[in-house]
Amino acid sequence: MKIIIVGATGTMGKYLSDVLGKEHEIVRVARTGADIDTDIYSTESIGNMFRAVGPFDALISTAGPTFVGPWEKLNDQTFRQGVEGKMMGQVNLVLIGQKYINPKGSFTLISGALTHEPQVNFANASAANGAIDGFVRAASIELTDGVRINAVSPTVIEDSPQYFPFFPGEVPTTMKQLEYGFRKSIFGRVTGQVIKP
Amino acid sequence: MKIIIVGATGTMGKYLSDVLGKEHEIVRVARTGADIDTDIYSTESIGNMFRAVGPFDALISTAGPTFVGPWEKLNDQTFRQGVEGKMMGQVNLVLIGQKYINPKGSFTLISGALTHEPQVNFANASAANGAIDGFVRAASIELTDGVRINAVSPTVIEDSPQYFPFFPGEVPTTMKQLEYGFRKSIFGRVTGQVIKP
Repeated sequence: MKIIIVGATGTMGKYLSDVLGKEHEIVRVARTGADIDTDIYSTESIGNMFRAVGPFDALISTAGPTFVGPWEKLNDQTFRQGVEGKMMGQVNLVLIGQKYINPKGSFTLISGALTHEPQVNFANASAANGAIDGFVRAASIELTDGVRINAVSPTVIEDSPQYFPFFPGEVPTTMKQLEYGFRKSIFGRVTGQVIKP
Repeated sequence: MKIIIVGATGTMGKYLSDVLGKEHEIVRVARTGADIDTDIYSTESIGNMFRAVGPFDALISTAGPTFVGPWEKLNDQTFRQGVEGKMMGQVNLVLIGQKYINPKGSFTLISGALTHEPQVNFANASAANGAIDGFVRAASIELTDGVRINAVSPTVIEDSPQYFPFFPGEVPTTMKQLEYGFRKSIFGRVTGQVIKP
């Protein structure tokens, strides 16, 4: 299976590239330092990436830039980080990528528990995640040729302990759980689901 | 109670202005033809509106522009209708309005059942609604001075029968149910809730 991993140089992306790379052809995509450098804030850059990759079977995204910081600093400008990054960046991966994906292929986007379990400093991520969750459910009834779409919605990640203090009460998602969430979406048959790994 | 109604010239806004206006001071806000004409796509226009209104006790929004149409026409440009309108328009009403609202005041935004119950042609609304739901939950733990925030999430509205054919299987939300959803948010004590009227 030919799998595009967007955000391949991040904590989640590196892990998933390694484990899925044992059995599948991986195309690593990130802003810099990957197989294909891509700016997901730019529809032109996304289009160039898909043209370079050609037909593929699955795209998984772990690319979720959002504004993290005090509520007092949240305004129209700072809010755009999540809108342009985690939200529209991922939406555009689907809207553009659907022209290149093989029949019965799948898109798997990254969301997060913050949608329903807010924490101080992360309102921008809660909104972007909620948008991704709603989009995935809606896109699943629109995509054609058997193409599926899901989101994986972890809480704070085991391999990012620097974030633990900001997520009181959240049992971290292990890397194995995260991997299995993506596996369910890529290799299972479900669509329109927000998978809590 | 001094209540700002944004989207006051629409189907929901007119109804709510009438019923709430029997007991409360209503400031009707809309793009044109209201007490204060405001472009919610513009943070400057929103700021001008709040300065003109002065201190207030509740803001309710029924302003939810999104792109409605075939999936094939959904792209980065058309998607912006919901991003700038129903999502960022309402987010900015809160981020700016919090500087003017009275202690123990409340914001009530409009979401919709499409977040969880997608229908063909409405993916943009599903995403914008999801963003509003996530934002409301997150903002509720950040707002100070007892200020509350909720969303009301109806399905297709009784008084918009032209939309019924696009919502197969959805029992329309009556205007009375819609009103009571907003009443729960304005006059009750809950916060961070997505109220299904």
